[in-house]
Amino acid sequence: MKRLRVGLAQINATVGDFEANVAKILDGIERARSLGCALVAFPELAIPGYPPEDLVFKPAFIDANLKSMAEVARASRGLTVIVGFVDKRDDLFNAAAILHDGTLAGVYHKQYLPNYGVFDENRYYQAGRESPVFQLGDVTFAVNVCEDIWYPAGPTTVQAMAGAELIVNINASPFHAGKASFRERMVATRAADDLVCVAYVNMVGGQDELVFDGSSMIVDQRGECLVRGRAFEEDFVAADLDLDAVFHARVRDPRRRREQLAAETSAPRIALTPAAAAPTGPPLPPRLVAPLSRVEETFRALVLGTHDYVRKNGFKRVAVGLSGGIDSSLVAAVAVEALGRENVTGVTMPSPYSSAGTRRDARKLAKNLGVDFLSLPITPIMRGFTRALAEPFKGVKTDVTEENLQARIRGNLLMALSNKFGWLILTTGNKSEIAVGYSTLYGDMAGGFAVIKDVPKTHVYELCALVNERAGREVIPQSVFDRAPSAELREDQCDQDTLPPYPELDAILEFYVEEDRSVAEIIARGFPSEIVRKVVRMVDKNEYKRRQGPIGVKITPRAFGRDWRLPIVNRFQDT
Amino acid sequence: MKRLRVGLAQINATVGDFEANVAKILDGIERARSLGCALVAFPELAIPGYPPEDLVFKPAFIDANLKSMAEVARASRGLTVIVGFVDKRDDLFNAAAILHDGTLAGVYHKQYLPNYGVFDENRYYQAGRESPVFQLGDVTFAVNVCEDIWYPAGPTTVQAMAGAELIVNINASPFHAGKASFRERMVATRAADDLVCVAYVNMVGGQDELVFDGSSMIVDQRGECLVRGRAFEEDFVAADLDLDAVFHARVRDPRRRREQLAAETSAPRIALTPAAAAPTGPPLPPRLVAPLSRVEETFRALVLGTHDYVRKNGFKRVAVGLSGGIDSSLVAAVAVEALGRENVTGVTMPSPYSSAGTRRDARKLAKNLGVDFLSLPITPIMRGFTRALAEPFKGVKTDVTEENLQARIRGNLLMALSNKFGWLILTTGNKSEIAVGYSTLYGDMAGGFAVIKDVPKTHVYELCALVNERAGREVIPQSVFDRAPSAELREDQCDQDTLPPYPELDAILEFYVEEDRSVAEIIARGFPSEIVRKVVRMVDKNEYKRRQGPIGVKITPRAFGRDWRLPIVNRFQDT
Repeated sequence: MKRLRVGLAQINATVGDFEANVAKILDGIERARSLGCALVAFPELAIPGYPPEDLVFKPAFIDANLKSMAEVARASRGLTVIVGFVDKRDDLFNAAAILHDGTLAGVYHKQYLPNYGVFDENRYYQAGRESPVFQLGDVTFAVNVCEDIWYPAGPTTVQAMAGAELIVNINASPFHAGKASFRERMVATRAADDLVCVAYVNMVGGQDELVFDGSSMIVDQRGECLVRGRAFEEDFVAADLDLDAVFHARVRDPRRRREQLAAETSAPRIALTPAAAAPTGPPLPPRLVAPLSRVEETFRALVLGTHDYVRKNGFKRVAVGLSGGIDSSLVAAVAVEALGRENVTGVTMPSPYSSAGTRRDARKLAKNLGVDFLSLPITPIMRGFTRALAEPFKGVKTDVTEENLQARIRGNLLMALSNKFGWLILTTGNKSEIAVGYSTLYGDMAGGFAVIKDVPKTHVYELCALVNERAGREVIPQSVFDRAPSAELREDQCDQDTLPPYPELDAILEFYVEEDRSVAEIIARGFPSEIVRKVVRMVDKNEYKRRQGPIGVKITPRAFGRDWRLPIVNRFQDT
Repeated sequence: MKRLRVGLAQINATVGDFEANVAKILDGIERARSLGCALVAFPELAIPGYPPEDLVFKPAFIDANLKSMAEVARASRGLTVIVGFVDKRDDLFNAAAILHDGTLAGVYHKQYLPNYGVFDENRYYQAGRESPVFQLGDVTFAVNVCEDIWYPAGPTTVQAMAGAELIVNINASPFHAGKASFRERMVATRAADDLVCVAYVNMVGGQDELVFDGSSMIVDQRGECLVRGRAFEEDFVAADLDLDAVFHARVRDPRRRREQLAAETSAPRIALTPAAAAPTGPPLPPRLVAPLSRVEETFRALVLGTHDYVRKNGFKRVAVGLSGGIDSSLVAAVAVEALGRENVTGVTMPSPYSSAGTRRDARKLAKNLGVDFLSLPITPIMRGFTRALAEPFKGVKTDVTEENLQARIRGNLLMALSNKFGWLILTTGNKSEIAVGYSTLYGDMAGGFAVIKDVPKTHVYELCALVNERAGREVIPQSVFDRAPSAELREDQCDQDTLPPYPELDAILEFYVEEDRSVAEIIARGFPSEIVRKVVRMVDKNEYKRRQGPIGVKITPRAFGRDWRLPIVNRFQDT
């Protein structure tokens, strides 16, 4: 039997941390060696980290990346290693190095550069034009990068036609809820269409607003998944490919053979001498990590995104303002899961408008989570501001100004704790609020990381239920779920005084924000026209707030972040 | 003599304000008619405004843009009108409509889509592939868009070879200091190279961080400027082109005629029936608005950018925190120039660390500018915070926390005024401070627009000198120039305690921020290595602050804004 043992090292690289990234890659190579893999692959831009953005314009950054690649090349003795780096020729390329037995045997340049959504790759790289295949003894394989495999007649097809039995596709594919299953279906279809095995390795970890979910996989020429790695943590997956099966599938496909002959003559072909003997003994057993539910994967993404933002920025501890509401409860629970309860401080900052119920729940939550708890009443500071502003505000009515002041006093107190103790502040605004501007700039929006900024309010409840379910106890008090949402910035305030009910709001926001639907289209779905117009206007006119808010984990197809580039000056009204 | 009278309407379009933009375009058409122009051109994307960014993903936005274009087409009776819009075919195109005598006679699709710097056009548009020429009676002209003319062998050359005697190049070319003269030299060279007249029309006005400076021009086939429009304001420029001169220049160039024959057969050719008689009477006299000096054009850009941001966002009045320092003095002076003194309030917020000199200068400046003046001492509020934080801060030393608190109290007071009276707050941080993070997030960084965020400290002084020079009196007190810069957040503080001298700092920052030079390269220029390393580290680690700061006018080739996309999580250290 013609067999190839392939390993995929799903690592958590950090942008710009060449030393740490190389160390992880060398570990992966060792692991591959000990498992008897002939070939091991690492994610897209595993050496510099992904996405490096404008760092690639720094010559020193590119040089460090090339030096690191050379170091990995030297460590590849005895096997074939595929690793992502930035190649520098007459221009820069998002590239995969094919390292073989201690040297750089070849390079593949990514051909399809994504320049949509969160991606700006045309800003940085030249597109590749060649689809080489590599001959490793009697095995033919090819390499391509991320986006390349999403095109049905792209490099994967060309390389398979040119004889590749295995496509190694290296990725840094950012998470959104539901994407993993979509992606696996696509990879399986591609493999079955092209009668080729696909080894798909994905980055894992958080980088600013993006989370890479891992879930690497190896799929055979029938589209069957042989191995699926863990989501949201580092993993090493390996499988034995049965290449005789690929051959037999192909010879039964006459259309294929004709086209193959033409392609074979055009694709560059690079021969490598096998450095290791084929593995002996029984084939590796399949290992299929079960896929996660939508709410589980979202929770895991928030946890990993928060962990990596805090740690990769060199922080140890965080603080969260606890209002006794559902949003701050979720953020605190995510923080504890990500960083450990010893690294989280809950801060309550009651005002005269804080109810006994929310004060009690804030305290109870902190106790249930086992985190430090600080109470800093803001009433005396409020009085100080009122006095300072008495003169200019004379004869003017009380309005949202006084509400914002409370939120901003709280923001200042949290930032003072941050400055004094080096804690990173996690903000607690959800996507629904941020969309319509139901939040105070420099107030509840003040902080380093907005954990749930991409989580619609209705999903916040589901995630909180999951927190209690995972713990097997009532971590987040039931009363937090049951109470009507309120900012508690004036007497008897309730979110629903100003906003439509959250299920309706979230549905409208999904159409408007994620799908760019027009007002007419949304109304046609059965929503009241006045409410649709009001929501759309609120989203439009609060762009200035979002622009100054902290970043947070992207969990939907379109988050307020890199994929939301709306002007602030904008007179367009879709009516 | 074969003559063509061409007009260029340099308008200030607003993104998404189709009604207002069309009204301006119809005015321009009337103006052209009354001047006897056969052809009139408007800027790139004059109909939707530029850059519309992700608004182009909204189907309702594209439809409104197409309807507006049809309205302009109907108004084109009796002449030829070139206007920028978003064309919708099988994809979206950044396009120029060639409107003739009431109908859409042709469309040109921009071929070179900028996707660098502040531009993301590959995100939105498909690139055009055709370089048509238009036959207007016995005159041959062609149209292309902005970036297209920057390429020496681009559409301009192809169209001139195919017989075009005039290239109408429509633009939305953002300002930076020194760009206007660079651009004029390029246009003149292109005209002389291709023996073609070039009518270059540029947008004018502010859009978020960008300012378009106008300075439209018409250049003849020798590269001589026949007319140059005003900078930083709307203008209409017109010239009579002597097309016999183009012919005579070409017949003397035998190389050209050979290539021309080949090109002529391939370029699509669209015939238009002249709708108006050629102008009679004497040719229009030349009008060459004098170019501005660097410091003048920078000042004008700040003024226009501020005016348009404030007004296009629907604000009437602004407030500026006056510290008595040089930065806030400049911002207040720009605000007065942009909005009128009746629309500016200066707010001083003294603390125990505010010196008698700065208190006096703040008041004096407000008086000299003739603006409203408010004084809101912050000492009692500081005491309130100190008390609220007494418990958690027990036994911990005083540090930068207390300094930031003062800045944040001031930010809160300004925002309270903003909320109560609807004033937009202008922040006062300069580029040098923002680069190294010498500023307080939610403190002095709190506000809607950061007027001088792209102005290095050393240039702030030059601009302040210009303010006094323009006024012919000491608007900004001399003592403000003479005093050593200080944040006045603790006893005897001075910027130079923590930062290198500003001339040295600004030079290092220019190399690092604008030119992406490595530490080694900057040291090689003669700067002390310790200082270079310190500055670079400060720039790198303050990315999180910049990400949450307000936008402001771009005046250098690379501002902290759309053209600065650095990750926050970034472990790279260039050492």
